[in-house]
Amino acid sequence: MSALPAGPAISGTPLPDDHPLTSGRTADSALIRSYRGERAERPAVWFMRQAGRSLPEYRAVRAGTAMLDACLTPDLVTEITLQPVRRHGVDAAIFFSDIVVPLKLAGIDVEIRPGVGPVVADPIRTAAQVAALPELTVDQLTPIVQAVRGTVAELGSTPLIGFAGAPFTLASYLVEGGPSREHLHTKAMMHAAPELWNELAGWVARTTATFLRGQVLAGTSAAQLFDSWAGALSLADYRTFVQPHSAHVLTAVADLGVPRIHFGVGTGELLAAMHEAGADVMGVDHRIPLDVAQQRLGGGVPVQGNIDPALLFAGRDALGAAATAVLAAGRTAPGHVVNLGHGVPPETDPDVLTWLVDLLHSSGPAGGGSAG
Amino acid sequence: MSALPAGPAISGTPLPDDHPLTSGRTADSALIRSYRGERAERPAVWFMRQAGRSLPEYRAVRAGTAMLDACLTPDLVTEITLQPVRRHGVDAAIFFSDIVVPLKLAGIDVEIRPGVGPVVADPIRTAAQVAALPELTVDQLTPIVQAVRGTVAELGSTPLIGFAGAPFTLASYLVEGGPSREHLHTKAMMHAAPELWNELAGWVARTTATFLRGQVLAGTSAAQLFDSWAGALSLADYRTFVQPHSAHVLTAVADLGVPRIHFGVGTGELLAAMHEAGADVMGVDHRIPLDVAQQRLGGGVPVQGNIDPALLFAGRDALGAAATAVLAAGRTAPGHVVNLGHGVPPETDPDVLTWLVDLLHSSGPAGGGSAG
Repeated sequence: MSALPAGPAISGTPLPDDHPLTSGRTADSALIRSYRGERAERPAVWFMRQAGRSLPEYRAVRAGTAMLDACLTPDLVTEITLQPVRRHGVDAAIFFSDIVVPLKLAGIDVEIRPGVGPVVADPIRTAAQVAALPELTVDQLTPIVQAVRGTVAELGSTPLIGFAGAPFTLASYLVEGGPSREHLHTKAMMHAAPELWNELAGWVARTTATFLRGQVLAGTSAAQLFDSWAGALSLADYRTFVQPHSAHVLTAVADLGVPRIHFGVGTGELLAAMHEAGADVMGVDHRIPLDVAQQRLGGGVPVQGNIDPALLFAGRDALGAAATAVLAAGRTAPGHVVNLGHGVPPETDPDVLTWLVDLLHSSGPAGGGSAG
Repeated sequence: MSALPAGPAISGTPLPDDHPLTSGRTADSALIRSYRGERAERPAVWFMRQAGRSLPEYRAVRAGTAMLDACLTPDLVTEITLQPVRRHGVDAAIFFSDIVVPLKLAGIDVEIRPGVGPVVADPIRTAAQVAALPELTVDQLTPIVQAVRGTVAELGSTPLIGFAGAPFTLASYLVEGGPSREHLHTKAMMHAAPELWNELAGWVARTTATFLRGQVLAGTSAAQLFDSWAGALSLADYRTFVQPHSAHVLTAVADLGVPRIHFGVGTGELLAAMHEAGADVMGVDHRIPLDVAQQRLGGGVPVQGNIDPALLFAGRDALGAAATAVLAAGRTAPGHVVNLGHGVPPETDPDVLTWLVDLLHSSGPAGGGSAG
């Protein structure tokens, strides 16, 4: 459950020989070394939602294309995924997608409404609806596989991180029919009809596992599971109703040997349980410091995070001080990849992000590893 | 900082002799006894947002009246505040208002847009704007004072709880211009211009203190400070930028001797700091059990909460089990008032709430006090 075995090469996995990780292109990168708890020459940094509306070049290529159409157009996904790597010099690309893409691929009627978010035409609340959910097949992943392959061909030694939404968050969209703060119908289903809930979340977990495994096999060097809304749950509800399904997804890519990162917003109370689901690296939001997170994890767990996105709007003095504090707290972990505590806000000035990457890269050797 | 002195009467306060608490009408109620950590005959229960859209009689009297107009019409406030007491037999009325009412009374251009929430016409982001904020005067509280007096005249021995939004939450509305998930501009102001932030939050604290003190003097037997969005903050940010301002509000009503309840959503990490701001009772949301909350508070603190509102939709078996679990966890506190972990959802079936009140009232003596 803790860091992956050390060493630049992973043997005995079914990853193809030309995979970026097994071929050695990305295995010695600062990102992968940090995820493994090894010492890196400098801090690795990337930003959740770095590919997106904060970039004028993104707004230009997305103009006139609906979000889910963009996610299923391989050349466009490659271009969008590469944009922040080119511009900011971040240490990883994150596969451009949306958490509802695997639902769409499986045949669910879902769209992204601008200003609203994902909207499911027919919310799933009955046993008959759950029983009728279509299984996602590997064949349906073709646009995803093409996009990953095209992207890693361009990335060289920069690792690509695979991306999937976790079962609770995705199931909430299906049950509520759209974004929800309270997740009333979802949590009601858990408690009123736990078998139905488990069937639904089990379907989501299988779908997500297929989606994420497809990405890794096609070329991602790591895989991040986002449980955006797990912070709405008590620890007891998380362990009973959610952890087993997230564990299914993380276990489904365990044999591939890529670092598995698990992240949720406002999940300071759930970190240990989310780690136990099978994560190698824990993403931490900005509500708790990384040293506190490390204590809660019992030590020995590489972490990712956690500059408050609001600091991107607070000027360079305050942002620099926050970055320094995050680096210091991250030294309590065996490996630390710098990120924000949440996604890049669309109104962010991209020059601030570039400045932050340069600052972090010039801050000396990363903590962790044998010198940590 | 812990429970108020025991005993049915509070002496030496400037509350008028005919105040419901000093006159003895409400001092022996299950609510006030529980808030003081004394033993009550049966569990006291009320629901945040019990007066509101879940009730058909509320929708009927509110039809055609804008939210803030309703909040400033004393007879309507009285009727709306009384409705859930009549229907459910809850142990307290909560003064019907909105957290932006004191801003409106002071002269800020703010409205409640249906489906959106409070919208501030001219977001406050500059020193000149902060310097120009108008001080709320006691005279401007006339509709509030009238509404409280009219309500307590009808309530008899049922206590009325006063209501105000806390400085961080209100300041976020002023700075962002409306509801926000990330509070980017607000947190950026804290870090980039802490003196400006403190001036703004100080103004909000004075305004809120005037609003809350006016309610208590007019007849409320308790006062709850809602920091709806404090859960977006790290503990360090809360202590540095928010706690002093919330403490100003709570201190401003300390001499009146009514129990002061402090509540925020997702504030499990902040409970001790929120208590130290000067609360007598800590409201707890549904993310952490009340026994865990009591541990974090160091023991000896009466609590309020914390049935997950989603359970209102999960059927009586699940809801009854959750209520029983909440009662059991609440016995670790010296006093416990049952509530939801968040407000009543508008789509709640009111009969479920009535059933829940009856269930709680028939569950035997409350925990806490000398027998706790």
